[in-house]
Amino acid sequence: MKEDSIIISKATIDRLPLYFRTLRLLQREDVEIISSEELGRRLGITPEQIRKDLASFGQFGKKGVGYYVKELLRNIGDILGLHCNWNFAIIGVGHLGWALANYRHFSSLGFNLAAIFDVDPTKIGLHINGVQVFHLDDMEKIVQEKNIHIGIIAVPEAHAQEVADKLVVSGIRGIWNFAPRKIRVPGSIYVIDEDLSVGLSSLSYYLARKVPPKQQI
Amino acid sequence: MKEDSIIISKATIDRLPLYFRTLRLLQREDVEIISSEELGRRLGITPEQIRKDLASFGQFGKKGVGYYVKELLRNIGDILGLHCNWNFAIIGVGHLGWALANYRHFSSLGFNLAAIFDVDPTKIGLHINGVQVFHLDDMEKIVQEKNIHIGIIAVPEAHAQEVADKLVVSGIRGIWNFAPRKIRVPGSIYVIDEDLSVGLSSLSYYLARKVPPKQQI
Repeated sequence: MKEDSIIISKATIDRLPLYFRTLRLLQREDVEIISSEELGRRLGITPEQIRKDLASFGQFGKKGVGYYVKELLRNIGDILGLHCNWNFAIIGVGHLGWALANYRHFSSLGFNLAAIFDVDPTKIGLHINGVQVFHLDDMEKIVQEKNIHIGIIAVPEAHAQEVADKLVVSGIRGIWNFAPRKIRVPGSIYVIDEDLSVGLSSLSYYLARKVPPKQQI
Repeated sequence: MKEDSIIISKATIDRLPLYFRTLRLLQREDVEIISSEELGRRLGITPEQIRKDLASFGQFGKKGVGYYVKELLRNIGDILGLHCNWNFAIIGVGHLGWALANYRHFSSLGFNLAAIFDVDPTKIGLHINGVQVFHLDDMEKIVQEKNIHIGIIAVPEAHAQEVADKLVVSGIRGIWNFAPRKIRVPGSIYVIDEDLSVGLSSLSYYLARKVPPKQQI
């Protein structure tokens, strides 16, 4: 697999999980080979974009035949590092924290929810989806004990930086930040900001223009 | 404002809500003028990308001075159609539905949660965040009565297509689909698929490579 020499765009990286998910559905349907046209039709992405994305990482599939589903699935999983079995924690047991703790697809992708944190005494000690809620003050100990790599920040905007600081001190390596503000972390920590209103705002853009969506089947 | 002649990429459109959100924070901080460098620093996006994105829609700001925050905020809001005051409904009162119904930022962007739907008798008639839960069978009537434009699908994968069909029949114009599968709708309906596992998978990609994140402050 190549890739080291070229810079991969965030857009390409963000599409890989969509390819992975669709390939898994295909595998469940016992589909062995798929063309970029059919994959594109299922995803609403052009075949050219799919071929270009995959070519960033190496040569997959056979010209005139298509991609072997099982092989491509394994390759994309390796590219995404899903074999690393990352342990993650959720900070904040509000509605969003509950939804993320119960989101089945994280475990099916190899992510292991190892701990949940909050400061509300009525939530400490609860088990959500079989995982214990600890007090925020115990974070450093628990992160070390359970070898947690990733922290998901699902707390109100006002507490996001404080939680980020605690996560950094406890030794996590990546943060998925749902709080609608930028957090400051050392350069060694990777952060992905998630803003749920982006989806709705993008939808508004198209509806306001009555753009005939090219993506539909 | 130009824009009709050129094709705007999805990536550019998805960044607009981030510019909008950051400009609103700046407005709250009484910042009147901002450079693309400072905006880029806050967002972890290059100044060139910001200038390129905004230039797709017209000429904003003054060379050597920067962008006037209030003016750019209004312009981006207009581009996104946020002045349209869209009414939306959430289908599915699981943890995710609760989280979305309580997500404060939708209303601050001008989106109005008008109704929630489910089939569970224990949830029908509840009010979440002041909004009533109706039975799915009443969707067509309620969508018409409340002039609902957008449906958010927050139901399990197995029921997503059935809900999409009901939304289409009831007359909505756009769907934000959280179910991890592609839904089939007529060409006139705009769909945005949201897959929460994309964020975690993208994070895995970077952690697996120990890529020094260029985005940090």
